[in-house]
Amino acid sequence: MTTLDRFAKLGIENAPGQQQTRDAVPVLVDFSHGDVDAFPPPPGTVEAFTAAFRAGAGRAYSPYRGHGDLLESTAAKIAGFTGAPVDPGDGLMITPGTQAGLFLALAALVEAGDKVVIVEPDYFANRKIVNFLGGDILPVPLDFTDPSRPGRIDLDQLDEAARRGAGVLVLSNPNNPTGVVYSGDHLGEITAIAEKYGMFVVVDQLYSRLIHPGNTFVHLRSNGISADRCLTLLGPSKTESLSGFRTGVAVGPPVVLKRMEQVLAIHSLRTAGYNQAVLEVWFDEPDGWLDRRIADHHEIMRELVSMFGDLGGGGVRPTEGGSYLFPELPPLAIPVAELVDRLRVDHGVVVTPGTEFGPRLRNNIRLNFSQDRRRAVQAATIIADLVREQRLR
Amino acid sequence: MTTLDRFAKLGIENAPGQQQTRDAVPVLVDFSHGDVDAFPPPPGTVEAFTAAFRAGAGRAYSPYRGHGDLLESTAAKIAGFTGAPVDPGDGLMITPGTQAGLFLALAALVEAGDKVVIVEPDYFANRKIVNFLGGDILPVPLDFTDPSRPGRIDLDQLDEAARRGAGVLVLSNPNNPTGVVYSGDHLGEITAIAEKYGMFVVVDQLYSRLIHPGNTFVHLRSNGISADRCLTLLGPSKTESLSGFRTGVAVGPPVVLKRMEQVLAIHSLRTAGYNQAVLEVWFDEPDGWLDRRIADHHEIMRELVSMFGDLGGGGVRPTEGGSYLFPELPPLAIPVAELVDRLRVDHGVVVTPGTEFGPRLRNNIRLNFSQDRRRAVQAATIIADLVREQRLR
Repeated sequence: MTTLDRFAKLGIENAPGQQQTRDAVPVLVDFSHGDVDAFPPPPGTVEAFTAAFRAGAGRAYSPYRGHGDLLESTAAKIAGFTGAPVDPGDGLMITPGTQAGLFLALAALVEAGDKVVIVEPDYFANRKIVNFLGGDILPVPLDFTDPSRPGRIDLDQLDEAARRGAGVLVLSNPNNPTGVVYSGDHLGEITAIAEKYGMFVVVDQLYSRLIHPGNTFVHLRSNGISADRCLTLLGPSKTESLSGFRTGVAVGPPVVLKRMEQVLAIHSLRTAGYNQAVLEVWFDEPDGWLDRRIADHHEIMRELVSMFGDLGGGGVRPTEGGSYLFPELPPLAIPVAELVDRLRVDHGVVVTPGTEFGPRLRNNIRLNFSQDRRRAVQAATIIADLVREQRLR
Repeated sequence: MTTLDRFAKLGIENAPGQQQTRDAVPVLVDFSHGDVDAFPPPPGTVEAFTAAFRAGAGRAYSPYRGHGDLLESTAAKIAGFTGAPVDPGDGLMITPGTQAGLFLALAALVEAGDKVVIVEPDYFANRKIVNFLGGDILPVPLDFTDPSRPGRIDLDQLDEAARRGAGVLVLSNPNNPTGVVYSGDHLGEITAIAEKYGMFVVVDQLYSRLIHPGNTFVHLRSNGISADRCLTLLGPSKTESLSGFRTGVAVGPPVVLKRMEQVLAIHSLRTAGYNQAVLEVWFDEPDGWLDRRIADHHEIMRELVSMFGDLGGGGVRPTEGGSYLFPELPPLAIPVAELVDRLRVDHGVVVTPGTEFGPRLRNNIRLNFSQDRRRAVQAATIIADLVREQRLR
């Protein structure tokens, strides 16, 4: 592959967080990521950071995997949360954000020419990282359009991809961008295929603490898969609004974590030494803090779903986990890309086009509804009005 | 290349910061990196961070290249420091540390099979990153052993490597680990070869503010090289002791920075939003702060050089820039690797073996002397005593 080919596959113009870079219009709502003013970090986070800074040399540098004491305390938290043991010695690493964890995991598992299963739609970077590494993407669709049925990936296609030699499956759960939470039974079916063919599963559970009422979250790693076949990515960037600290964790088999550590050594050496301290606060939020956060997000989600529900098109699936909605718009007189541009340039409303999450998702847009409720509704009204105006009759 | 081959080239056991991970002996001095207690960060850094945190949403997320206002202010500082213009719009990016900048730069420039010139000795990650990317390393030696002569890379070998098709040269200046500062004339000779063959030069100037008395630092980018052929990496991690924030910058041609931004998008999205604020303090230290820092480092360096000077072997070149010494030890009864282990395990003195910086540097060790002076001397005495004890007669 030439350099130009490789970078042609790494387009970032429409990636979340990039679109508004040089616009002059003030932003009303940036739905491409959450608003940490509307949902601030838990109490104590900046204090944990400054205490680490004041502690000095012992916290500035850490081994590449992270500070030993934080690996210990975080291992206990993750074991409790996910329902399976975590060895702080060789089963856990602190990563410079969950995104970096994903990069490190795939860099540790994928060689040029290797086949990798990517769910569509799924997090935009999954495909891009595999492209960067020279892997060969085998897409498998996620059926999410009918809210009355559980979201499921196409098991026949997954089996076929594994049979054709795909060594790695990467997926997010809750799914980004659709908000689907995979059932324990469905995870079991996926696991059966992984075990049958010897396929490794990387699961990005960044949103697994923000589970909407009525849904049950099952952790892949405690649902029957072999411990040496599964790597779980977690972090406090989303539900806990700590994205500005770029700190996450990876839990998985020692042989894979060892390679991830080797890549981290040349990637950025270590997670910023002081920033790792936010893990002290993670999972130790005040009583009721998480419940309230979930309830607030659920209310906003219900309101936006009611606004998008009658636009026609494929409609919108209510979010089961996380803070994304992924409505499928009706046929429009303008391309979705132009709708997205107009929303941003004319109205200061930033949304992410569905094609960032899979080349076939041409009629969807993604909204992160972790926003101020009043302004989110105002911006959603603008979106709905523009869609109605441009809708083909 | 198989996965095992690739990772076999990424060994990290002896990498700086890793060796002491699981030892029980208390560390007396960790010469593998600087001591931020002995040389603390400039005043105002943690305050800049916390102000960014308090500012909330506007600082948590930035475009991938960094916050626009910090790109503006930093561009002006870098232009002044390096003596050539910097366009904050497309000529600069904020990177998650200078290490990440190096990874992003090489990922933007090197395809599998590409030839890359690596200076030996030089920063340990240069080789490892090129290996990771599947590049083909053409080593070119740096002659640094005679302190009475300026440090020079072998121009015949550089010319030969460029003639054989090497498209990229990567080097640190001041050189890590030897402390050599390249003269303007020598940089001109390197530039002439780069221009003749169309070779791109990545220069890591992480230590370019810590220039010892009697030396003049010349910035490659303002010394006659074409602007589209040179990328400069800088950051506040070393002289300014801000490594714990993982923040650096890259200055170079727009087409290369654009690719680096594309890789950053999948690497870790952006430099931690709040951490970028330390760039406000960078180059704005109080009057006399930098002079004092340089003088203090210079004194420690003189003292250690006098202690290592009479050990035999190749001796030690006094540092011209940065805070590294790279003594060549005399022939020993034990391998240098064992000396390094004994120093750490028996005495709590951590040094980095020379082979981390080039496979041929078997008799050298590297010391970062940015340490408490008294303890550095105590630890250097332990090193000198053990070398004398094991010296072959």
